[in-house]
Amino acid sequence: MSWLHVRYRVRSQAQEVDALAHALALEQSVEVPQEAVRDPFVRDHIVGRVDAVTPAGDGEFHVDVSLAAATTGGDAAQLVNMLFGNSSLHAHVELVDVELPDGFAARFGGPRFGIGGLRRILSVPARPLTCAALKPQGLSPDALAALARTFALGGVDVVKDDHGLADQSYSPFRERVRACQRAVDVACRETGRRVLYAPSLVGAPRALREQLRFARGEGVGIVLVAPALIGLPAFHELVADGLDVPVLAHPAYAGAARVAPPLVLGKLFRLFGADATIFPHSGGRFAYSAAQCREIATACRAPWQGLRPALPVPAGGMSVERVAEVVRFYGRDAMLLIGGSLLAAGDDLLARTREFVGRVEAAAAAELPAAPAAVPAE
Amino acid sequence: MSWLHVRYRVRSQAQEVDALAHALALEQSVEVPQEAVRDPFVRDHIVGRVDAVTPAGDGEFHVDVSLAAATTGGDAAQLVNMLFGNSSLHAHVELVDVELPDGFAARFGGPRFGIGGLRRILSVPARPLTCAALKPQGLSPDALAALARTFALGGVDVVKDDHGLADQSYSPFRERVRACQRAVDVACRETGRRVLYAPSLVGAPRALREQLRFARGEGVGIVLVAPALIGLPAFHELVADGLDVPVLAHPAYAGAARVAPPLVLGKLFRLFGADATIFPHSGGRFAYSAAQCREIATACRAPWQGLRPALPVPAGGMSVERVAEVVRFYGRDAMLLIGGSLLAAGDDLLARTREFVGRVEAAAAAELPAAPAAVPAE
Repeated sequence: MSWLHVRYRVRSQAQEVDALAHALALEQSVEVPQEAVRDPFVRDHIVGRVDAVTPAGDGEFHVDVSLAAATTGGDAAQLVNMLFGNSSLHAHVELVDVELPDGFAARFGGPRFGIGGLRRILSVPARPLTCAALKPQGLSPDALAALARTFALGGVDVVKDDHGLADQSYSPFRERVRACQRAVDVACRETGRRVLYAPSLVGAPRALREQLRFARGEGVGIVLVAPALIGLPAFHELVADGLDVPVLAHPAYAGAARVAPPLVLGKLFRLFGADATIFPHSGGRFAYSAAQCREIATACRAPWQGLRPALPVPAGGMSVERVAEVVRFYGRDAMLLIGGSLLAAGDDLLARTREFVGRVEAAAAAELPAAPAAVPAE
Repeated sequence: MSWLHVRYRVRSQAQEVDALAHALALEQSVEVPQEAVRDPFVRDHIVGRVDAVTPAGDGEFHVDVSLAAATTGGDAAQLVNMLFGNSSLHAHVELVDVELPDGFAARFGGPRFGIGGLRRILSVPARPLTCAALKPQGLSPDALAALARTFALGGVDVVKDDHGLADQSYSPFRERVRACQRAVDVACRETGRRVLYAPSLVGAPRALREQLRFARGEGVGIVLVAPALIGLPAFHELVADGLDVPVLAHPAYAGAARVAPPLVLGKLFRLFGADATIFPHSGGRFAYSAAQCREIATACRAPWQGLRPALPVPAGGMSVERVAEVVRFYGRDAMLLIGGSLLAAGDDLLARTREFVGRVEAAAAAELPAAPAAVPAE
């Protein structure tokens, strides 16, 4: 039998941490007191095991636990349940990381396009990619389409909906998606460049499928989804059910203050099929550290059981002035997303967008080692 | 236009809290800097408003924000997005409560059976209900069915799967559900009492529907679902799509350390259709306070825009010895759930189960005011 190796961070008095670690291993496996485990198969193959307890500073400890892979039944919901079901209710416990047994990740499939697929679709072999966001919500479809046109003319690679755009009375999903996709298509014909428009899909499973079908019918070439908002299992099903365009994951409701951001926004979103994943870069309006951002990028891009790498998409209060620094930080295989600070340019939006794109190209040329000449083959 | 009134708790320096409250109202509505809002409709009807900032002790503040109801589009996923999408990434922000505008809750429907419906199905007009759990996972279907039989003979009202039971190699969903439902049916014929068996449904949306269809075909009369694990929108769709038996909600992965437990386990689960909701009673192995448990019970049972009340199900490390105290605490309209500590009785499980049930009846007679004679009509 194979095991998941799970790391938790717990806040505890030193004299209590061993008992707490033992309780955690029981809670995340059999959920009964040890003395209630009478079956030898359960005792030997199902009960969680504490592998190590190590001080992590500041009154916290890392608790490493092995959980039987068989308990997940190979299902996304049940995997999350085993990792952090009941323990998510404990304020003193955070879920830090998981190592999966060989072959486990492949069952979920991971990104279907990944970094290489996105580069091929966009015909951008080596430089960092760029992305801008349509907002604020409350604008009409025509106003959002006008923004989309400006961003596309300005040269970004991906124009995404704000994650707040849904199916709202002042901007119904269908009207908005049709208007924005057409605006981008027209701009692309004018410039001869490829730009993808990423509409936000949000809702219950059936609504998601209807939105996806409509969007694909309009020629949409990438979609934005918040896996934690729609539910990780619904996300995985949507992706694995033959979604034929890349998916850009949004971190909304990921509760990433209780599950380590590199695990949930990097590893788990990638495992369940995100081709690119948005997260707040340090120094913006969210409190992520540079070290956490580096770990997220690693979780997206590092070799992992044969899954394709996912594209890190730093965002969250970035500005055009920070482009060179961000390009240095992430290197080529990233997509820079600037949202509200572009829009603050008002009537100068087109010029500001061109400045953003130009700075990314300049930073890549100046700061990064020589690039490969063509998109790498699959 | 109508507004959601949302309360957050933030950790902040006093001199920074007003700026932080303003940022929070922008983040949860338009997600751009104030100066990027140029459209008058957006400025007047969509931008979130700070209504009050009040000290909450210990360096924390309550921030009350109004968010436009129109931004939710009447959708479960989008409602959660507007309440706590991006702000869930802020470690210093917790979501405490929401007041919905008149008529808003009715759109989601709430419990279809509620307390009255459960009492009618079980023919238990007035005493607190009882529930026991099948575990540990790892047991075979036959072993779980033997436990189910014992609990049913022992007189509990509901026998539920442990939330860790899924579709696992050592206990496939179909075999387990068939065996447990039959064991309960046979026991009911022997005793002449009604007992409901609640299998745990877990998985992606399609798997959930298949599990539900199978379970209903086997005569299952109630189901256990963890709304946060499968995703709140998928949960609401499953319930609202004509589910014809009550649903018992499990708190797994509710991340209730970042969203106040009375809001997520009480209000939101009820809003989206839970007829009964499991939560850890104080003094067990979770750190919930008595005050929090009282608030959860209130969120389940208080009048709320015409929704049926949901049944509070205190659990989480309770024991037979605590029955009288718990009955006093919650009164008649609750279901006591004892899991692992019953199972620790080993070969004395039947006697221990009878003691649990007997103590609930005795406590209700001794501690509670005179009961109504019959199940109240709908």
